[in-house]
Amino acid sequence: MARILTLTLNPALDLTIELSRLEPGQVNRSETMHTHAAGKGVNVAQVLADLGHQLTVSGFLGEDNLQAFETLFAKRGFVDAFIRVPGETRSNIKLAESDGRITDLNGPGPQVSAEAQQALLDRLDQIAPGHDAVVVAGSLPQGVSPQWLQALIERLKNLGLKVALDTSGPALRAALKAGPWLIKPNSEELAEVLGGEAVSLVAQAEAASRLHAQGIEHVVISHGAEGVNWFSVGSALHATPPKVSVASTVGAGDSLLAGMLHGLVSADTPEQTLRTATAIAALAVTQIGFGISDAAQLAQLEQGVRVRPLTEQ
Amino acid sequence: MARILTLTLNPALDLTIELSRLEPGQVNRSETMHTHAAGKGVNVAQVLADLGHQLTVSGFLGEDNLQAFETLFAKRGFVDAFIRVPGETRSNIKLAESDGRITDLNGPGPQVSAEAQQALLDRLDQIAPGHDAVVVAGSLPQGVSPQWLQALIERLKNLGLKVALDTSGPALRAALKAGPWLIKPNSEELAEVLGGEAVSLVAQAEAASRLHAQGIEHVVISHGAEGVNWFSVGSALHATPPKVSVASTVGAGDSLLAGMLHGLVSADTPEQTLRTATAIAALAVTQIGFGISDAAQLAQLEQGVRVRPLTEQ
Repeated sequence: MARILTLTLNPALDLTIELSRLEPGQVNRSETMHTHAAGKGVNVAQVLADLGHQLTVSGFLGEDNLQAFETLFAKRGFVDAFIRVPGETRSNIKLAESDGRITDLNGPGPQVSAEAQQALLDRLDQIAPGHDAVVVAGSLPQGVSPQWLQALIERLKNLGLKVALDTSGPALRAALKAGPWLIKPNSEELAEVLGGEAVSLVAQAEAASRLHAQGIEHVVISHGAEGVNWFSVGSALHATPPKVSVASTVGAGDSLLAGMLHGLVSADTPEQTLRTATAIAALAVTQIGFGISDAAQLAQLEQGVRVRPLTEQ
Repeated sequence: MARILTLTLNPALDLTIELSRLEPGQVNRSETMHTHAAGKGVNVAQVLADLGHQLTVSGFLGEDNLQAFETLFAKRGFVDAFIRVPGETRSNIKLAESDGRITDLNGPGPQVSAEAQQALLDRLDQIAPGHDAVVVAGSLPQGVSPQWLQALIERLKNLGLKVALDTSGPALRAALKAGPWLIKPNSEELAEVLGGEAVSLVAQAEAASRLHAQGIEHVVISHGAEGVNWFSVGSALHATPPKVSVASTVGAGDSLLAGMLHGLVSADTPEQTLRTATAIAALAVTQIGFGISDAAQLAQLEQGVRVRPLTEQ
């Protein structure tokens, strides 16, 4: 069991609303509405907890709608090191119609002041040491710059911590300069920050080499149902997941990241690490939510994962 | 200053989302999302508090999303006598597009068990005595029958309390049998329970006579911008509000009820009671929210209210 800290700078309350048909301009009634505390770092923490690790969660939370988060943290036994900020954590609403159409309504989230940003840095100086790894995942809230994220990662590295990063766009571009230990972009996110070049396998391998040279040890590139490419220094593996019936892809990327981290901190072999991580992501896809409630199902999915060196085709 | 108890059996978290245009099937981003603790009895309590009264609030609250309610009650100094029930209080989401189109998404709310219903009756036996009036307002949650509402009102009357009621449909029909002290249907709600007959003024007057004979002292019928008819035993008044620019009608009916109750418990003249209540409702209409933050504006609106006996045309 490892001690892992996850940072969610821009968490979200996910509200899923099922309705037979969305009628704009009308009063629509829904038989099911469920609120979940979410955000990439919070999701990763839940999967890592399912895998037996001890979690500390941090980032910024709006003080006006804390309850779902505090309830989840207490239930899962997470150490709550979130900085509270004025306002409401953003809500991400998913309207799911019976024909399968999904409409998203994503809210803005609170403005995070310079004081709150400093408070988080101070908190991390106190609590981060002693953790085996730190996950920084998700988008940036209003008021937080990509440069601040870069400085945050540098600070965590200076505390001697391994930093796994999952973000995109300008935040990813800036954070790469800090040289995190592991990154997990999907192919589009990587292509975006590297200037649209990293689509082919050869281009990915070249990009990964340059990233290794910047001190980024692990480049994990997800391709959805087509699998995962993992470039580490001296090794490149591809995993193909088993075919599964897709219930929802929510949390699949977070599950992959949690699985990779689990294997790495547990010192599993690279092949086993990637196999398990790919199976955990596949398991997430079979669920409306995500997480590992059925160890037997995970073991069966692991059997169906094909892992091979990336030099073979 | 009076002590008033309001009961909200089916409160709601109101979530207002402004967006430029709702695109079904797409990811929509909103710059403003605001959550408010709401429900008719909670709204009435807030207006009565603005008028200087001391409030106790009760009913059923889902224990999974209490924070907005508890924060409001603490801020307003309300005595919180709500029974907590498993699950989430329903969310009522309003999507407001920039062209003025409104789409409502109304959630189901928790199932209220027989045990929770009994717990509320027991709580009311303890806390209701000593209040000058009780407001029972809004719809019934899942699991609560119109007959239970009727029994609740009978029980409150047996405790010696004046009960003001604002509900509709089968709940109103059953509750009328208990003979509340005051009812405040709008014209459609009254027509619905009386079998589609109470549209004309004569029909309203006849209906009011029958209701008076059942022990219902005050029949307040709201007609939106056209005003209010108030039939009490031996008196019938009409009030026409001043013309105002409409920002939102949310809370206007609750404001009218609060205003009527204020005048009656303060022993104002009937003419003054109806004038102030009508002005408070008009003030609500000028706001996105409701409530009395500007006493001068209320005084000015009162000047614009025309009150006349209903025998004059």
